Amino acid sequence: MIVNMSEKATEQEITHVIERIREAGYQPHVTRGVERTIVAAVGSGRRHEIEALQVAPGVDTVVAIAQPFKLVSRQVRPERSVVEINGVRIGGPEVVVIAGPCSVESREQLLDTAHAVRQAGASMLRGGAYKPRTSPYDFQGLGLEALKILREAREQTGLPVVTEVMSTEDVDVICEHVDMLQVGARNMQNFALLRRLATVNRPILLKRGPSATVKEWLLAAEYLLSGGNQQVVLCERGIKTFETEMRNTFDLAAVALARDLSHLPVIADPSHGTGKQSLIAAVSRAAVAVGADGLIIEVHPCPERALSDGPQSLDFAGFEKVMRALREPLRPTAVPRVAALSAQS
Amino acid sequence: MIVNMSEKATEQEITHVIERIREAGYQPHVTRGVERTIVAAVGSGRRHEIEALQVAPGVDTVVAIAQPFKLVSRQVRPERSVVEINGVRIGGPEVVVIAGPCSVESREQLLDTAHAVRQAGASMLRGGAYKPRTSPYDFQGLGLEALKILREAREQTGLPVVTEVMSTEDVDVICEHVDMLQVGARNMQNFALLRRLATVNRPILLKRGPSATVKEWLLAAEYLLSGGNQQVVLCERGIKTFETEMRNTFDLAAVALARDLSHLPVIADPSHGTGKQSLIAAVSRAAVAVGADGLIIEVHPCPERALSDGPQSLDFAGFEKVMRALREPLRPTAVPRVAALSAQS
Amino acid sequence: MIVNMSEKATEQEITHVIERIREAGYQPHVTRGVERTIVAAVGSGRRHEIEALQVAPGVDTVVAIAQPFKLVSRQVRPERSVVEINGVRIGGPEVVVIAGPCSVESREQLLDTAHAVRQAGASMLRGGAYKPRTSPYDFQGLGLEALKILREAREQTGLPVVTEVMSTEDVDVICEHVDMLQVGARNMQNFALLRRLATVNRPILLKRGPSATVKEWLLAAEYLLSGGNQQVVLCERGIKTFETEMRNTFDLAAVALARDLSHLPVIADPSHGTGKQSLIAAVSRAAVAVGADGLIIEVHPCPERALSDGPQSLDFAGFEKVMRALREPLRPTAVPRVAALSAQS
Amino acid sequence: MIVNMSEKATEQEITHVIERIREAGYQPHVTRGVERTIVAAVGSGRRHEIEALQVAPGVDTVVAIAQPFKLVSRQVRPERSVVEINGVRIGGPEVVVIAGPCSVESREQLLDTAHAVRQAGASMLRGGAYKPRTSPYDFQGLGLEALKILREAREQTGLPVVTEVMSTEDVDVICEHVDMLQVGARNMQNFALLRRLATVNRPILLKRGPSATVKEWLLAAEYLLSGGNQQVVLCERGIKTFETEMRNTFDLAAVALARDLSHLPVIADPSHGTGKQSLIAAVSRAAVAVGADGLIIEVHPCPERALSDGPQSLDFAGFEKVMRALREPLRPTAVPRVAALSAQS
Repeated sequence: MIVNMSEKATEQEITHVIERIREAGYQPHVTRGVERTIVAAVGSGRRHEIEALQVAPGVDTVVAIAQPFKLVSRQVRPERSVVEINGVRIGGPEVVVIAGPCSVESREQLLDTAHAVRQAGASMLRGGAYKPRTSPYDFQGLGLEALKILREAREQTGLPVVTEVMSTEDVDVICEHVDMLQVGARNMQNFALLRRLATVNRPILLKRGPSATVKEWLLAAEYLLSGGNQQVVLCERGIKTFETEMRNTFDLAAVALARDLSHLPVIADPSHGTGKQSLIAAVSRAAVAVGADGLIIEVHPCPERALSDGPQSLDFAGFEKVMRALREPLRPTAVPRVAALSAQS
Repeated sequence: MIVNMSEKATEQEITHVIERIREAGYQPHVTRGVERTIVAAVGSGRRHEIEALQVAPGVDTVVAIAQPFKLVSRQVRPERSVVEINGVRIGGPEVVVIAGPCSVESREQLLDTAHAVRQAGASMLRGGAYKPRTSPYDFQGLGLEALKILREAREQTGLPVVTEVMSTEDVDVICEHVDMLQVGARNMQNFALLRRLATVNRPILLKRGPSATVKEWLLAAEYLLSGGNQQVVLCERGIKTFETEMRNTFDLAAVALARDLSHLPVIADPSHGTGKQSLIAAVSRAAVAVGADGLIIEVHPCPERALSDGPQSLDFAGFEKVMRALREPLRPTAVPRVAALSAQS
Repeated sequence: MIVNMSEKATEQEITHVIERIREAGYQPHVTRGVERTIVAAVGSGRRHEIEALQVAPGVDTVVAIAQPFKLVSRQVRPERSVVEINGVRIGGPEVVVIAGPCSVESREQLLDTAHAVRQAGASMLRGGAYKPRTSPYDFQGLGLEALKILREAREQTGLPVVTEVMSTEDVDVICEHVDMLQVGARNMQNFALLRRLATVNRPILLKRGPSATVKEWLLAAEYLLSGGNQQVVLCERGIKTFETEMRNTFDLAAVALARDLSHLPVIADPSHGTGKQSLIAAVSRAAVAVGADGLIIEVHPCPERALSDGPQSLDFAGFEKVMRALREPLRPTAVPRVAALSAQS
Repeated sequence: MIVNMSEKATEQEITHVIERIREAGYQPHVTRGVERTIVAAVGSGRRHEIEALQVAPGVDTVVAIAQPFKLVSRQVRPERSVVEINGVRIGGPEVVVIAGPCSVESREQLLDTAHAVRQAGASMLRGGAYKPRTSPYDFQGLGLEALKILREAREQTGLPVVTEVMSTEDVDVICEHVDMLQVGARNMQNFALLRRLATVNRPILLKRGPSATVKEWLLAAEYLLSGGNQQVVLCERGIKTFETEMRNTFDLAAVALARDLSHLPVIADPSHGTGKQSLIAAVSRAAVAVGADGLIIEVHPCPERALSDGPQSLDFAGFEKVMRALREPLRPTAVPRVAALSAQS
C-alpha cells in the first residue's frame, strides 16, 4: 500500500500517517520528493486501516499495490486447477460443452433436449429449476419438479447436470438432485449464498456479474475457496455496456485475463454473452480460441416457444452446427507478397 | 407488442406469426408497408410468447410498447405514495435525512453517532449489521450484536432505524430489532430475498443495482408490491461507468425519471453515489433540487478509522455542514443586459 | 510515479528499473518490502519513459501519483477563473443561462427564439450552423447562412452567441460572426481542432466527450490553455451508459468534481444530459444546486417540427417554466421528532 | 416508424399525428388496441419528422423499425466486399496482418520493425506520423518526417502502409506518401474529416469509437460510402467500460455482428483492445476465430522505450509468437462418456 501525501501536507500530517501505518501492523517507509512525500506500508497488516487513511488530513490518495485475492491466484497455485463433475473434467486438455434449455419446462422438453445435445457432443446438461426473472410476471421455474426431471435426464443420458441456485434455502434439495450448482450473474455478490455454498460438497459454477470487474469476480470466488470449497469454475457471460444491439457485451479478453490471474478453470456462455442466436457459432469459436475451458449453451426444441430466453436459444440443428463449427480450422493468414512495391500514384 | 417482419418474409411466415399471436391471447393487426409488414399484438395476452417470436422465421425484431411494470407505475396510481416509518414520512412535503455509519462497529461508536446526527437534524438512523463486502477478508459486520445496539440507539434517540438485510434467513431477527429493511444494491435482483420481503410487515428501502436500468429497478420493486408489501422506498446510489475518479456515477436524473414513472418515494445516497467526502455537500443539494424525497448519508466519528467506507464517510462536523448546505438558497441566475451589443471585432 | 516490481523480480531487473528511472530524469528511491520491492521516481522527468517500464522485465505495475494536467488545475491557480463573453461573465456569482435551438433552421425560427429566450431571462444565445449528425442523411446545418442569422439575432437582442465548430477550416469564418466557439462532445479529443482553437481570440465552450473521464476532459482543456487560450468554459452534457430510458446519463457529480480539480468555470447541458423534455426543469435545478456556473438549454418554437433534437427541446412556455423553477427554494428538510420512540411490535 | 400513443391520448391528438405522418411523406396506418392506439408510418418519407413526434401531445414513444444505414448494409449488397490496398486484399479468404509501431520515432526504429514484421508474416505496415494524445505534453508524432520514413519502409519491404489522419488539412500530404488512411477511434464521428475522406482515392481504415454502438460505427462508414469512397475497412479496437484491468473491453462479438449487418471487411486491433502485451496472442486467435478479416498489431523494437503505447506493444520475438499462435489448431472438444452415470451421493 502506498499513501501519497498531498503537496501541502505538513510534517505533523506525515507523522500522523506514519503512526497509523505502524498501528495497522505495517512498517512505514518514507520517500520525500521535491513536490510531495509518499509513505509505503511494507509487510502485512490490516489493509482496510490503510485504505481509510484516504481521508486523513494531508493525504491525497492511497494506492493498493498487491492484488486483494489470494487462494484463487496463480501466485498461490501456479499450475491450473481441474474441476471434476462426476467424471467430466473442466480445466483439462479438452473443451467441455454444457448444453440444455434455459428453463426446464416439461419432462418431454428436457429429455428430448438432453438426448439431442448428448448426441451432438455435449458432455454436461444444463436446465433451470429456479429462475431469476427481471419481472415478477414472468415464468419463475418449476422448482422441485424440475429438479426431479433433471435427475431423470441425468440417469437416462449419463450427462452430469448443472442448475442454478438462487437462495440458501434451496441449497440442500438442489444438492440432492444435481451434480453442480450455478451461481447466476445477478447473485455473484450474494455473499450469504456464497458463504453457504463454500460448505457444500458440490462443484460451483460462478458466473461473472453483469457489472463486475475481473477482480470482483475473483474475490467472489475467493469467498468459496476461503470457506472451504475448492471446486470452482468461473463463467464469463457478458457485461452491461452502452451497446444495445446485443443483450450483453461478451468480454472474451476477460477469459484470458482470468486465466492469467487465477488457476481456476474458466468457461464462457455465448448465449447470454450475445443474446443472439445468429452470433453463437462465431463467438463460441472465439471463446475456445481465447482459451476457455468450456462453453455453456442454451438449446431448446423450439426456441420460439421457449418460456424464457427464446431469442438466444438454439434449436437442435443449430446446436449441431455450432458443434461442427468448433472443429473447423482457423482461417489462414495471408503471406506477404515477395515483389517490392512500386510507388502508387 | 409489435412484430416487425423482415423484408424477405414470406406469406407463410407472416401467417405463422399471426397464428402465434392469436394463440398467445392477443388479436393480431397487420400493417403491410411497401418494404415490410408489421403485425401488432393488440389486447392482453402472454407477453413472453410474443417476445419469443423474435426467433420465428421471417421475423426481424419484436418491440414492446407498454412498460412491463404495473403496480409501481403512476398509471395505476397517479398520486404520490408516502411511506411512514414509525412516524417519519418519506414522500411528503419534507426531505427526510437518514444518517449513520456504514457499519455498526461498537456500542459507543453507534450511540455517539446517533446522538450527533439527531442533533444535526437527521430524522432516521442507518447502520450496517450484516455487511456485503467485496472481499471475504474484510470486516463482515457484528450481526445480532449490532442489531441490539441499533435498537438501543433508537430507544435513546427516538430515531427510527434502517439496516441492510442480505439473506432470507436473517429477515425475522432483523424485523424484531429495526424499523425498516434495506435491500442493498448488489441484492436488487436477489429475487428470493425480494419475495420474502414482500411478506413482512416492515417498509423496504430498495437500492438500485450498480448496473440496473430504471426499468429493472422498478420491476424489482414490482416484486415487493405484487407480493403484498406496498411500503417501498426507492434509493439511487450510483451506477458503474468508465469514470474512475469517483466510486460510482451518481445518476440524479434517474431520481427525476423514477418519480415520473412511479408513485413510490425516491431517496438518494450521495455517499455511495460519489464515494468522495469532498463532494457530499454539493451532490446532496443537487439530489434535493432534482426532487429526491430523502437522503441517506454515511457518518462516522472518525472516518479514517472506519472499518468500512471510510473515504466516503463524513465526521460530525462534516455532516453538520451538509445539513446547513441543504438550507442555503440556489445561486441566482444572471439577468440579461439591457443594452444591445455592438459587434465585437 | 511508482514502479511496483513483481514478487519474483530479480536484483538485475530491479537494477535495470533504477537505471531507467535515472535516464528518464528522475531520482530513484527504493523501498524493499517482505514480498516485493517498489521503486519511486522522484522529481520531474520524462513521464512516458516511466510509464513504458510497465513492460520491463520484473515489473508488475506502474502507478502515476500526480495528476497529469497542470494549467487547468487549482494547484496552479487556486482562485476560480471567470470567462467573459462580450459582457456576460461565466464563473462569477450568477448562473448564466444560454438558450436557443439545436440548429438554426431559418431566420424567423432563430429570431423568434432569440427574443423569446431573452424575454424569459437567458443571457446568451446558442444555435447550430454546422451540425455533427450521426447519419449522413440527417440535416447538416445551414453553414454560413446560419452564421449570418446568428449575427443578426445578436444585434437585435444584445445576446452574445455561441455556435459549434467542427473543423479547423471553419474557424475563421465562425470567429467573424459569433462570440464563443463550442467544441462538441464528439470532438473533445479532436486534437487538431483543439490546437487551432488554442490560437484564436475567442472563448471556447468545451463539452465533455460521451465517454471521457473527468481527467481526459481536463487534459483536452489543457491543450487549449497550454496553446495560449485561457478563455475556456467546461460543459458537462451526459455520458454514455447502459441506461436506455434517457439519451445520456447526466453526470452532475462530475460538475462538482471538475470544479474541485480545476479553476475553470463549468456549465451543464440538461438537454443532451437527459434527452427528455420532461426532465429538464428538475435536472436544471440540480445542476445549479451542484455548483454549475451556467446552463445551456435547447429551445425551439415548435419542438415537434425541429430538424434536430426535437425530443429534448423546450418550447417557449416550457423554457419559461424552467427559468421560474430555477428561482424556487429547495424543499425543506424534515425536523427530527422530539418524543422518544416506543418499540414497534 | 411506429408512433405509440399514450393511453390517455385524445382523438384530436391521434388525428394530429396522422396528419403529421402524411405531411412527412408517409402513409399512416392506425391500430386501435384496448388500451392504446398505435400509428405506423408506412412507405418512405422524412424520417426525422416522425422522430420529432416524440414530443407531440398524446405521444408516448416513437420506435424506428428499419435500420438507418443503407449503402453499408448487406440488404443493399449481400456479397462481401474486398478492399485492395496495393495488392493486399482485405475481406478475401485470408486473414491480413498489419503490424508496426504505434508511432514512427526514427528511421532506424521503423525500418527495423518493418523488416521484422515482414519476416514474421505481416502483409502491411502501420506507423503513426500524427498522433492523437490525451495529454498535450506527450509525444505528438514526427509528422511529415514520419511520412517519408514510412514511404521508404514501403519501398524497402514492399509492404503497403497505413497511417492515421487527424485533420482535413493533412489529407493531401498523407495521400502522397501512404497506401491507406486510418480514422482513429476518437475521430470516428469527426464528420468534417469523414466528408473529406469520402472524396480521396485511398482506402480508409475506420476504427470504432470507444463509446460507439455498432449502428453508429456503420453510420460513420455510411458517410464515406455515400460521399463516394467505397474502399472502407472497419476496425474494432475495444470500447470503454467499467473494467479497469484492461485498457478497453475488446468487443469481439461486435466483429461478428458488424459482418452480419454489413458487407464491409472488418478487422480487429488486439493491442488497443486489451492494452496488455500478455493477452495479445490469445485475443488475436479469438479475433480470427470470430471472423475478423485481419488484425492490426503494435510492434516495437523495445516496447519499454516506446514513446507511446509501450505497455501494449510486442517486441519482435513476441510478434513472431503471435503469428505462430495464429496457426495452431483450436483445442478439441470433449466427447461425452458412453457409460451411464450412477447417482452421486
